[in-house]
Amino acid sequence: MKLDAFTLNDLYTWGAQLRLLVEALATLAFALSGVLAGARKRLDVVGVCVVACLAAFGGGTVRDLLLDRRPFFWVAQHELLWLVLIVSVLSMRLLRLRGRHHGLTERAILWPDAVGLGLFTASGVHYALVAQMPLLVAALMGVITGMFGGVLRDMVCNEVPVSLRDHRPYALLSFLGGWIYIACQYLTDWAAWVAIFACVFTTVGLRMLALWRDWRLPDWRA
Amino acid sequence: MKLDAFTLNDLYTWGAQLRLLVEALATLAFALSGVLAGARKRLDVVGVCVVACLAAFGGGTVRDLLLDRRPFFWVAQHELLWLVLIVSVLSMRLLRLRGRHHGLTERAILWPDAVGLGLFTASGVHYALVAQMPLLVAALMGVITGMFGGVLRDMVCNEVPVSLRDHRPYALLSFLGGWIYIACQYLTDWAAWVAIFACVFTTVGLRMLALWRDWRLPDWRA
Amino acid sequence: MKLDAFTLNDLYTWGAQLRLLVEALATLAFALSGVLAGARKRLDVVGVCVVACLAAFGGGTVRDLLLDRRPFFWVAQHELLWLVLIVSVLSMRLLRLRGRHHGLTERAILWPDAVGLGLFTASGVHYALVAQMPLLVAALMGVITGMFGGVLRDMVCNEVPVSLRDHRPYALLSFLGGWIYIACQYLTDWAAWVAIFACVFTTVGLRMLALWRDWRLPDWRA
Repeated sequence: MKLDAFTLNDLYTWGAQLRLLVEALATLAFALSGVLAGARKRLDVVGVCVVACLAAFGGGTVRDLLLDRRPFFWVAQHELLWLVLIVSVLSMRLLRLRGRHHGLTERAILWPDAVGLGLFTASGVHYALVAQMPLLVAALMGVITGMFGGVLRDMVCNEVPVSLRDHRPYALLSFLGGWIYIACQYLTDWAAWVAIFACVFTTVGLRMLALWRDWRLPDWRA
Repeated sequence: MKLDAFTLNDLYTWGAQLRLLVEALATLAFALSGVLAGARKRLDVVGVCVVACLAAFGGGTVRDLLLDRRPFFWVAQHELLWLVLIVSVLSMRLLRLRGRHHGLTERAILWPDAVGLGLFTASGVHYALVAQMPLLVAALMGVITGMFGGVLRDMVCNEVPVSLRDHRPYALLSFLGGWIYIACQYLTDWAAWVAIFACVFTTVGLRMLALWRDWRLPDWRA
Repeated sequence: MKLDAFTLNDLYTWGAQLRLLVEALATLAFALSGVLAGARKRLDVVGVCVVACLAAFGGGTVRDLLLDRRPFFWVAQHELLWLVLIVSVLSMRLLRLRGRHHGLTERAILWPDAVGLGLFTASGVHYALVAQMPLLVAALMGVITGMFGGVLRDMVCNEVPVSLRDHRPYALLSFLGGWIYIACQYLTDWAAWVAIFACVFTTVGLRMLALWRDWRLPDWRA
């Protein structure tokens, strides 16, 4: 009886729950990068929460503003807001207890951050194509969704955004992943989820490869 | 004859005019904080006006953008725009004559600024509830309306926003006031203005108490 | 036969193409100012492209967000996006080869930048009047369109925006040009293009005069 009930419908539900879980993880990774940035600037608890929210929700909010989409995703899923606020306060407490592990945390955060970049890129391209944007705009919307959370986080912390001066490929991989999404969509007749998966795997895989092999973009001193 | 005419309608008109007066005062207080910030950075007259406008109208504009409300309140009441521009130029002249009183002005500005915080919080929560936002989003919309004018003012002046690193409760009180608004609205059957008054009085009162008793949020060095 | 075909329609087409050419030039001038700002901060190729796009499209995007106009002009004319991206990468290569000519480029850029300011001002005022904004808001929308690209460029580069602290008239001339547009529209019964030309010529001419004669706004040290 129980085995009979294991139908495609269940699989779909499992898939949706898995997606939600991964999305929540990606949002949390971005939020955690905000907490670390706030801690480095010695902000108070309000500052840490604001920077964490900007990092986690900034990119998607800019995307939704530009595409004129309502409700915002953090309104439709306001559980994420609670999650980010609570995790920010808790991790701030934790950081205060053991401040010497910042470096470790920072390196550990690069992996979920890469997953976040891939997922946010795919969502940006997806919604832009749904809104009938030109292809270049769709690819850029993926980049904006993936990188503008970090840009806003660094701007409010009074830093030049790390993704603009890091010389390690980040937004460029998101741009590439966006074009792969578009290519899958327009050049093949595969299902929609193939495009999403190809985009996410390209972006995340290349980002991890770039971190592992320490790839660098050409610098000013040639 | 004149006394007969003193009806509820007159009272309503008086109330509306009082509200307009207080709102104008709060906007001016925020604008003045922008003038002071611009003067400290030695901006020119255009810079001072831009920073004053960002401080005065920034929070409400972000709120209206996020809630998709048009026209903006500074379009509907563009007299406020004239007022802020004229007051900015005049107070800039005044500051140039007597630059040594900056400190005095800064302390004096904290009181109308507290009133502004309370009023802006109430307006943010109110419009968010009208737009059927979830409760947490409504409370945060109050905080955004109250604090983002100052955040934009400090960002354009190339500073870490003072409300994020000050360790004196500001946005936190606005958050608390927002929840009190929501509680009054949902747990009681009192009139709508009770919720507004409770929110404003809580926020303003606690802010003044916090300034007077020099309350501090926990810092990083425990 | 060929001469016969030279009709008003052709003239109109020529005019539209001329306008497009000048607009593209103005956008490129703003983009180039972004490339120079990014080069000075030693950003990577992504950073330079982001700053160039913010400088070129930021003002118009803020205008369109505030006036609730869609599609954005860089969506409707996404050839401009390609142009800005390609020119950014190419001019970055060029700058790397001959870094010592920055100063020269910076002065050379002031002239197309002035043209850009005039054109962007006229477009801001035009769309605001079409959207039935109050006159002051329309004049300010011209200023916002003209100056906010540069403001965003400098904010993301972690500088106090140059247009706020330069003491050379820039936004003020755009404000003046905006009022001239409005005056032509409301006080005369001349054709619409007269207002546009008067606004652009006033702004650009005064800006060039101001640069040539080195006009200064009053400074804080009286």
